[in-house]
Formats: sequence, structure tokens, C-alpha cells
Amino acid sequence: MKPESVSLHPLGAAAASSAAPVPEMLCIFGTGDLGRSLGLRLLQSGYRVVYGSRRPHSCGPLPQGAQVMSHETAAQSASLIFICVHREHYGFLETMAPDLAGKVLVDLSNNLKKGMYPEPNAAYLQRLVPGASVVKGLNTLSAWALQNGLLAGKQVYLCGNSAEAKRAVAEMATKLGLTVLDKGSLSAAGELEDFPLQLFPEWRLPLSVAVGLTAFFYFYLLIRDVIYGYVEQDKDISYRIMVSLGNKVFPIVSLIMLSLCYLPGVIAAFLQLYRGTKYSRFPDWLDRWMLCRKQMGLIALGFAFLHAIYTFITPTRYSVRHKLITLVVDEMKNNKTTPFYFDNTEAWGQDSFYVLGILGFFLYVLLGLTSLPSVGGSLSWREFSFIQSKLGHLTLFICTAHGYIYGWNKFLRLSTYKWYTPPGYMLCLIVPSVVLVLKALVILPCVDRTLTRIRQGWERNQPREEMGKVTNL
Amino acid sequence: MKPESVSLHPLGAAAASSAAPVPEMLCIFGTGDLGRSLGLRLLQSGYRVVYGSRRPHSCGPLPQGAQVMSHETAAQSASLIFICVHREHYGFLETMAPDLAGKVLVDLSNNLKKGMYPEPNAAYLQRLVPGASVVKGLNTLSAWALQNGLLAGKQVYLCGNSAEAKRAVAEMATKLGLTVLDKGSLSAAGELEDFPLQLFPEWRLPLSVAVGLTAFFYFYLLIRDVIYGYVEQDKDISYRIMVSLGNKVFPIVSLIMLSLCYLPGVIAAFLQLYRGTKYSRFPDWLDRWMLCRKQMGLIALGFAFLHAIYTFITPTRYSVRHKLITLVVDEMKNNKTTPFYFDNTEAWGQDSFYVLGILGFFLYVLLGLTSLPSVGGSLSWREFSFIQSKLGHLTLFICTAHGYIYGWNKFLRLSTYKWYTPPGYMLCLIVPSVVLVLKALVILPCVDRTLTRIRQGWERNQPREEMGKVTNL
Amino acid sequence: MKPESVSLHPLGAAAASSAAPVPEMLCIFGTGDLGRSLGLRLLQSGYRVVYGSRRPHSCGPLPQGAQVMSHETAAQSASLIFICVHREHYGFLETMAPDLAGKVLVDLSNNLKKGMYPEPNAAYLQRLVPGASVVKGLNTLSAWALQNGLLAGKQVYLCGNSAEAKRAVAEMATKLGLTVLDKGSLSAAGELEDFPLQLFPEWRLPLSVAVGLTAFFYFYLLIRDVIYGYVEQDKDISYRIMVSLGNKVFPIVSLIMLSLCYLPGVIAAFLQLYRGTKYSRFPDWLDRWMLCRKQMGLIALGFAFLHAIYTFITPTRYSVRHKLITLVVDEMKNNKTTPFYFDNTEAWGQDSFYVLGILGFFLYVLLGLTSLPSVGGSLSWREFSFIQSKLGHLTLFICTAHGYIYGWNKFLRLSTYKWYTPPGYMLCLIVPSVVLVLKALVILPCVDRTLTRIRQGWERNQPREEMGKVTNL
Repeated sequence: MKPESVSLHPLGAAAASSAAPVPEMLCIFGTGDLGRSLGLRLLQSGYRVVYGSRRPHSCGPLPQGAQVMSHETAAQSASLIFICVHREHYGFLETMAPDLAGKVLVDLSNNLKKGMYPEPNAAYLQRLVPGASVVKGLNTLSAWALQNGLLAGKQVYLCGNSAEAKRAVAEMATKLGLTVLDKGSLSAAGELEDFPLQLFPEWRLPLSVAVGLTAFFYFYLLIRDVIYGYVEQDKDISYRIMVSLGNKVFPIVSLIMLSLCYLPGVIAAFLQLYRGTKYSRFPDWLDRWMLCRKQMGLIALGFAFLHAIYTFITPTRYSVRHKLITLVVDEMKNNKTTPFYFDNTEAWGQDSFYVLGILGFFLYVLLGLTSLPSVGGSLSWREFSFIQSKLGHLTLFICTAHGYIYGWNKFLRLSTYKWYTPPGYMLCLIVPSVVLVLKALVILPCVDRTLTRIRQGWERNQPREEMGKVTNL
Repeated sequence: MKPESVSLHPLGAAAASSAAPVPEMLCIFGTGDLGRSLGLRLLQSGYRVVYGSRRPHSCGPLPQGAQVMSHETAAQSASLIFICVHREHYGFLETMAPDLAGKVLVDLSNNLKKGMYPEPNAAYLQRLVPGASVVKGLNTLSAWALQNGLLAGKQVYLCGNSAEAKRAVAEMATKLGLTVLDKGSLSAAGELEDFPLQLFPEWRLPLSVAVGLTAFFYFYLLIRDVIYGYVEQDKDISYRIMVSLGNKVFPIVSLIMLSLCYLPGVIAAFLQLYRGTKYSRFPDWLDRWMLCRKQMGLIALGFAFLHAIYTFITPTRYSVRHKLITLVVDEMKNNKTTPFYFDNTEAWGQDSFYVLGILGFFLYVLLGLTSLPSVGGSLSWREFSFIQSKLGHLTLFICTAHGYIYGWNKFLRLSTYKWYTPPGYMLCLIVPSVVLVLKALVILPCVDRTLTRIRQGWERNQPREEMGKVTNL
Repeated sequence: MKPESVSLHPLGAAAASSAAPVPEMLCIFGTGDLGRSLGLRLLQSGYRVVYGSRRPHSCGPLPQGAQVMSHETAAQSASLIFICVHREHYGFLETMAPDLAGKVLVDLSNNLKKGMYPEPNAAYLQRLVPGASVVKGLNTLSAWALQNGLLAGKQVYLCGNSAEAKRAVAEMATKLGLTVLDKGSLSAAGELEDFPLQLFPEWRLPLSVAVGLTAFFYFYLLIRDVIYGYVEQDKDISYRIMVSLGNKVFPIVSLIMLSLCYLPGVIAAFLQLYRGTKYSRFPDWLDRWMLCRKQMGLIALGFAFLHAIYTFITPTRYSVRHKLITLVVDEMKNNKTTPFYFDNTEAWGQDSFYVLGILGFFLYVLLGLTSLPSVGGSLSWREFSFIQSKLGHLTLFICTAHGYIYGWNKFLRLSTYKWYTPPGYMLCLIVPSVVLVLKALVILPCVDRTLTRIRQGWERNQPREEMGKVTNL
């Protein structure tokens, strides 16, 4: 054993006396982007930093104030070593295992793809250097975030078998402004290494639903509008595929997605009423559904946004202008006067339709804004629930009314049902109407009273003597 | 006294040696949503957790790694106990008061409504268990935020009579990533319990102003436009109530609200100039007004947004298309040619009107974006004041010009003043014009110089010998 | 030496025993806005606060719980003193230098302009009071942020010559919820004092590019459209200057700015391919360019937003309506029928043009949303790179296609080239097309493989024996 391998700032001492005059020395193996950014950040937070490099004299620009040494020398001067090296090159660590005995090794590595290796990087590292305490963590930080000071309050995860090693890393991370979550032993390393490779896992289900609904309604309307016109009336209106069809499909999918946001809530309420307790778990599918309501709502907002823009550009479209001109010219040539009679009902109906649409869209945007992390985080609990529940259901109500007015005088007309199929907007009104009716039932005073009691912990089937003793928040 | 009631991890020891090898044990009474989420979070932050439950063997799923015991046993194993139980069921705590002597009890409870009980929950708890140190706090956290890791950097409030107990809770909260604010003794508990029940207190005044202005202008224009037309010209243009009236009221209210954002600033400047010092307090109404400027501006932006959408859908409206068609048909039938003469002035005027409106709306949106907490927080002081003051006044100027151009050729026309009343847009230009004139006075070099000196601490009536000695930031 | 000048809570003791029963006393010189807000905040965080004032009995309202004394007495009761006084009035500190010996003085002052004084305020203060340890810092906090509790997670900078003094201040700042970055010795004070005076430094370059491009294209199109029409066809279409020209210039600049976001990325890729290593630094201009990509993208989004609104209001414009009416009337009078023939190709082409524009704008907005700090911060690394790279290039592709379709049937028409100049949209398609072609080359499998290896640390010119030994993250 080399005598120099005694660490200059033993971990225990450093942790105990936070007023030690000389700042703690930390070691970083690897002088890549991440290593350099991490070193810069550590220096800024008041640590001393030494780099371990295979080529200490030609490793490119390092942060000012840091030292560079060979891996062995660098390892000796610190008790905490960050491994900022690709897993493919961990080999050299095995050869210097004696130098690393008793040290804390922080494994920051990520892989390019999930499941590239059977064993997580950190477990592999622990196997190579059994004498050290490997802590997996901080791997969700990017060099970019480190350099630009975007760490404040960010959550990072740690896992490792040594509680003391984890505490040392957690203390360091807290000094960097990070919030630390302990994920347990090193067996969680695989999970942590998968974090940076996640690609919107909570958006999968809502996106699949949105794509499915869009595809279904697109083909449904394609058949009813374009193909029906071609087959039965011999008209080529295929140009409608681009804009008109989109502007029918988007509001339909948006309204259905919005109602799917609020459906699990009323289902849960009825389930609690039926069971008479809030202590039984919801079925898994309902739990999963409730967890992706925010994403469903945001996708619904996206479709509503598209619907709004499609509507705004409508009057500039060639086909719309052509229709208007044709109308006038036909009128003049044939001396018809009917279409020019001003229909007050039509004016009222159409304007109401627009006003409801605009108000609905406005509330939609408001809901979307409060789901921004920084806005939602500044709301009190009652404010958040007011917006997401009261305002949310109001939005659903207004948008549903917008849909009903669209078809107000077409519901009973036979020509509406081409090939015996109902038009798209009728189909899309089913789910929202059901949600609104169920919600109306839930907020009936008698039902609401029972539900509130259940949610405060009351249980219908509780033995009399126990009832009302202790209920939990 | 039972010998088992000795806490296993005495508070003092735990606080002194943060490097203790075994993590501290915390106790949670109550296994509801909040209790479970809190326990999960504490476990993730490296604590050990024991639940106290009246039915330790059937209390539903608890976070992995937590223990469950009877209330008494659980209380003995920790010095800090979270009370996640409804106030209605605090009774059992009184019976176990001896077990709780010397413990820190964290009261997280909230009530459903304000003023449900004469005494705050925490004060009631302290009365029930006089031997314990009750700390009120963390009650603004929701189970939802705890589960989803949305705590980082969030502010929580604490109050309590024991400074040591508060420090223990503050330390724990800091470890969870929260920022702690001490609100003093337990007498502040009522205030803390009201926090989660707040419903946009700072939005009340601006919303009242907005609703008042909207109602006033709506009825004013209803009389001038629709009722005047019906009475004097016998025309039924009631369909205009839906869209046309809205599209007049919204920009009017928006512009007035925007100018009300900037009015208190110039009033304050003139007050400081008049008083010759910045050390006298502003009158209360001015202070209240200045505190809700942000909310006023956001409401103004909301109305501007509605105005924009109303304008975008205008050409698709039935009545607008009908008017266009009627114009053409009338022209053709009567062989008039006048309306088809291209009026260059009209084209210039209308296009300028649109351009000013668009630019104003664009700047409006920019102002709104910088008022998002996460965007505003990343601006330097000078950037923030540049945007909110310079850009804000520019926006007001452009929007006011937009209003003036709207009525540019109607100010002197007699037919504008139906029933001797001025049209809405004239009324709405008064306040913005006043604000802009006052602001122009304030930025005159001579006035600006005096004002800057006053704001740096200079006082006009200061005795000569004291002048310029010490001024404060 | 006065015996009373012994500080009641010596710094060392306070730092060592964080469990001291009496909270630490801090002193604030200056009772202005900043002093008051800071004191309030310190009291809320559990400190005791004493103000030093030249007029202790008439210094206006101070936070509840704070004491006020003369400067000398106040200084004696604390070891850490905040100097919330304008630099102009530091004089009195020199006279009381003996009282301040051994104290930590935190200089929070800012100047009104850059370079007002040759020496930074903090260096000046250190010179006046050589016996104290001056720490510059916290000067980026505004009284407004302090009062409204907007500190959580905010970064502040410190600098000073005494490591111990900095540690004391850092500890205090951490308790306030701030994240501290150590900027080194007091020589960095000037830099820290310039921070609050920064006015969007990272926006300068992108804004200059945007203004330059806008000016160029505006005059180019003014000549081609308005002046050409006036000179060659003797038509006065000057009214087009307001809206039509803007609606041509904005999309052009937006598309070019968007492509300039993605150009440095492909240049960097080709540079790395050419050099065969990622360890050589990029040239300075490329580094600077890459650092302002986000700002470029946001400006591009702003222009796209303006383009969208200009398009939405188009049909309500006088000149557009006039043209439509003229078309119909001309048709009727001359009995032409040609324009009323429904051109299916035209309908398809125009609708595709709109659809691409809408989708492009939608993706643009999505990109902009993820660049909000609070949204971007919640994304994993892979999600962020997916959105900014994949979605970004898709947006560029769609917007470029939007541009190509606009001119689809005009490229080969001679009349397009007025005065032998190409129209604006052709010019604006050059850069995006180049970027897309280069990007397509980069993602070819063979090129992509080499690039990935280089980015993982492989070097083409590395000696064989060293290759693949250690590569860095």
C-alpha cells in the first residue's frame, strides 16, 4: 500500500466540522464535457477540485482553479471520486482498485440505449472495485444544466449500499443547490440509469388515445363526406381532405379528450359511493387513467388550438371565397332573392356558436397555463382545485354546448344521416354529455354530503363502536 | 411514566451529530393519503418512518420500508410526530397525552372552511397535549405534491411556541427540499390554517374592477347601439349582442385595465415630487392598488386575447358575409359605382389601425410572458424594470393610438353622438391619455432629475447639515 | 477600544453550534426599501435583526420584531452587518471603522449605471474599513423579490477575500432559501455589481441579426413591390406598406432565424467529422453562435406569431374586401365566367400551403413552450434533445415546405423576376434548404456512426495503442 493514498480530508471529519478552514477536495475522473462542467460547479460552490486524467498534460481546457494529476495521484487526495468516464472504459478502474479502497465512487454514467448491458453500470463498477462504496446518482444532470446554473431546486436521485457514502454525496449535492431523493440500495441503479433515457412515459397512453381517435374520426368523416359525395352525388370534393376534414376532426378529438380528463374523477366518486369507503384501492386501470389526466388535457388543448387556427384562416381559403362569389353571381343571374333575406335566427345561432367556442377556448388556455409547473406551484390547494375542477367542468360544459349548437337544427333532419351514419359531432357529444350528467348527479346536495363524509374517512360498513373515532387526512 | 416512552433518537443528539450512522426515526399518526405520501417522501429523503394507526393490521397499503404500530408504541420510538388526522378526531391524543410529553407534534391539518372552529387546530391540539411542543406547519403541502416530487424550493410556513421544536421541524423540511419561513409563535396558527383555503385574494380587487367596467360598458353600448337602433330607427339588430358588443366591450375594458396598471406608478411619482421625500408612506389605497398591478395587467391581457379572437372570427360571421353580399347585389342592381372606388386613405387608415393593434397585442403577450414566475425570476433587476416600465408604457401608447385611429374621422361627426352620449371608445381613451400625459411629464429631464434624487434618499425639507449624509438603498 | 464592541454572538460559535438556543443576531445598516425587506425576510427565517440608523427614532416603519439603534450600538450586537446604503454615503463607515473591525460586512449596493466609479463599491468599502471582512453579494436580490418570497432556489453570487466570512454569509443565504455560488476573491466585485445592470446581453446578437434581416427584406420588398408598381405600372399601392409588406417580411425573417438556430449544429458536426476528434475547441464565432440559439429560436417564434396574426386579420382588410367585390362586379358586368371555374389544383395547393403553415406554427409554439425554464427543467435529457433536435428539424422542414408551396407555380414564371430580382420568399429558402440538406447528410447511417463514435471520445488520429482506453462523458 502506498503511504500517499491516505486521503487528505477524511470524510467523517469533513462532515462533522462544517466550519473547517480548508474546503474539502473532490476528485473527478474524466475531463469530458460533464467532468469539466461538474468541476466548474464544484469550484463555484466552494470545493477544491482535482482531475484524474490519463494524459494530465494534454487534456484540454479545465476550469480555473482545478488541479490535474494522474488517476492514481488524484484518487489519493480525495475521499469522494466522480466517475465521469464511459462504462466501456471502466477497465482501468479495476487495475487501480487498491487505490480506491475505502473511497466513495459516484457513478454518473448513462448509456445510449436501454438494456445495452445486462448489469447496470454502477453494479459493474462495484464489482470491479469491491473495496469502494459506489453511489449511483446525479446522472440526470446534463453538462449544459451544470454550466448554465440550472440546478437550483432540481431533484436528483441517489442509490448505494453504504448509507454513509450516500450521506456524503447527498451533502455535496445539497450544497450544489440540488434536492436529493434516496432510492435505496444499489439494486435501484438500473432504474436510475433508465431515467435520462425516458421518452415521455406518461404521455404514451394519452398520445395513443389521441392518435387512435384522430385516425378513427378521420376515416369516418372521409367516408361520410368525401367518398359519399363522390359515390352518391358524383362530386369531387377531395380538396376538403386538407383543411375542412382537419377542422372537423380536431374539435371532435379535443372535446372527447377533455371529457376523458374528467370521466375518471366521476367514476372514482361513484366507486367510492358504491363501496362506502375511501380506503379500498381503485382498480389499476382507473389509477393509470387518473395519473395521465394532465397530459390528456394538454393534448386536448393542442387540438383545440389547431381547431382555432383552422377556423381563423377559413375565410382566406380559395374554396370559401369561391363559394361566396358563386353565391352572389348565381343570385344575380337568376334573380333569386331568398338567400339575401337576413335570417335573424341564423345570426343569433351562429354568433352564439362562436361566442361559446371562444369562451371555451379562453378557459382551455387558462387551464393550460395553470398546468405550467411554475404557475401551478404558486397556487394554494383550494385555488388549484378550484381551477382544475370547477373551471375544468365549466370548460367542458361550454365546449359541449358549442358542439350542441353546431348541430342544433340538424339533429332531426334526415339528410344528416348519410348512409345511415350519424355525423361526427353527434358521436363526439356522447362522452362529454355522459360526464356532465354524472357530474351533475355527484354535486346534488344529498350525494355530495355522503361523498364528502366518505372522503373525510367515514365508512358505511364500519362497526358502530369504532365509527368516528379516528379518520385520517 | 412508562420506561418505553423514552425516545430512541433524542432530538438534541440527532441535531448535533448529523453524521449519526442510523437515520432518524419519524412517526406519522394517520394512514390517509397525506400520511402515506408524507411517509414515502420521508423515506426517500433518508429517514426511517413508523406509522401509528388504530388498526395496525388493516390500514391499507403503506410505503415500502415503513413500520406500522399502535399509536402508543409508534409514539415511543420517535421524538417528532406528524399528526395527519382530522381535527374532529384529536380526542384520542388527549388520552395518550402522557406518551406524548416532550415530543414535537407537527400539526398538518386543514379545515374545509374558514372559521369552522373558534380556535385554530394547532392551538386546540396544544391544549389537549400541554406537555408536547406543537408546531403548526407544512399544511400547505398536498398529498399530490408530495407524491409527485413537486416540493423542490417550495415555501412552507412554521409556527410554534418552542424554538427548539421549530428548528427540528425546519431541519427536516429543509432535507425534503422545502424552504422554511418562521411565522412566530403558535398564535399565528390560524393564519397558517387559512392559507390553503385562500381563493385568489390578490385577484379580488382587479376582478371586481374588471367585472364592474365590463357591466357598465356592456349596458352603455347596449343602449347606444341596439336599443337606440330599435327605438329611433326601428331596426332589430339584437343579434349584435353576442359578438359585436363583446368585441367593443373587451378592448375598452382591456385598455382601461392596462392604463390602471400604470396610473398608480405616476401618482406615486407625483406624490413623491410633491412631498419632496420618499420616506413618507403612501396612502393605503395607493399601496393596495400598486400591489395588484400584476393581476390588473394579466386581466387586461385576457380581455385583449378575447378581443383578438373575436376579431379573427369576424369575417366568418353570417351577418358580416350577408352585409358583403348585400353590398355587391345592391350595387349591381342600382348600378352605383361609388363604393367600388378604391379609397387610399381608408386603406391606409384601416391598415395602420390593424398594425397598431397587432403590435400592441404582441407586446401585451410579451409582458404577460415575463410575468410568469419562472421567466420573471430569471431576469436581472434592470431587465425586469425595462420590460415592465419601458415596454409596458410603450404597449399602453400603441394600444391608445390603436384606439385613437379607430375613431380618427368620427370625433367631429355629429351622428357619432347618439342621444348626446359619446361612443364607448372615446370614454375608454380618457384614462390612458391621462396616464400617458402624466408619464410624459415625469420623464421630462428636469422632473426626472429631481425624482431620481428623491428616490436615492434626498429630502427637500431636510436640514442643511444632515443633507446627503446617509441614504438608504 | 470600547468594551461594548464585543459582538454578542461571535461568528465562530454561531457557525459551530447550529443548535444554539438563541437565534443569531444580524445587523442591517440602512432602513430603505431593501433594508426593510431584507430584515423582514431574516426575521421570518428565524434570525434576530437590529437596524443601524442615523435617526433611530424617526426612520419610518420597520418589520415587527426588529430593533433600531444608532449605527455604533447596532454594529456591536452582531458579527454580520448588511450595508444597505448608497455608495455615495459610505463615508460614515470610515469614521466608525474601529467598531467594525473583525465584522463581516455584506455589501449589497448597486450603481445606477455601469462604470460610474473606477473602483467597485465593495473594494471601496474594504479600503474604508480595512479591519472588516467585506463580502460582496446578494445584490441581485430586489426588495420586491424579498418581500414577496420569490427567493426559493434563486442563485446568488458571493465574493470576498475571507473564506470564513463568505462561509458565514453563504450559510445565512442558504437559510433564506437561496443557492450560493462563490465567485472568488473581492476582485470579482465589479463583475457582481454589473449583474443587475445587464440588459439582455445574450439577446444582443440575435436581435441585431433579426433587425438587420428585417430592414434588408423590408427595403428589398418595398422596391420590388411598391416602387416597381409605381414606376413601371404607374399604380399607387403604397397602402401595402403597412400590412402586406409586413406579412411578407415576418415569415421570411422567421424562417431564416429558425434555420440559423440549426445551422451551427450541423457546422459543428462537420467540423468534428473533418477534425476526427471532439477534443479541439470550436472557433470562437461558432461557440458564440451556439450559445444564442435559444434566443434566435424565440425571436423566430415571435416573428411567426406576428405572421400568424397578420394572416388572420387579412380577410377583414378594406383592400382585400374591395378586391373581392371588384372581382365579382367586373365579372358580372363583362359576363366573364373564367374566374368562377373551380380550380381543384388551386384548392389543393392553397389548402396544403395553409396546413403546412398551421402545423409548422403549432410545432414552433411547442418548441417555445419547452424553452420555458420551468417546462424545460422538468424534461429528461433525452426528452429535451428529442424536442429540440428531432422536433426542431421537423419544424424547420415543415416551414420550409410551406415556403416552397407558396411559390410552387411561380418559380419558372418570368414575370416573377421583376427588375431581374428574385422574390423575397426565394431568397429566404436558401439557408433553410442548405441546413436541411446538410442535416440529411449528417443522419446518413455511415456518417452518423462515425459522428457518434467521435462524440463518445474516439479520435481518428490517436495512436493505436492508446485508442479506446479511456474516454470521458
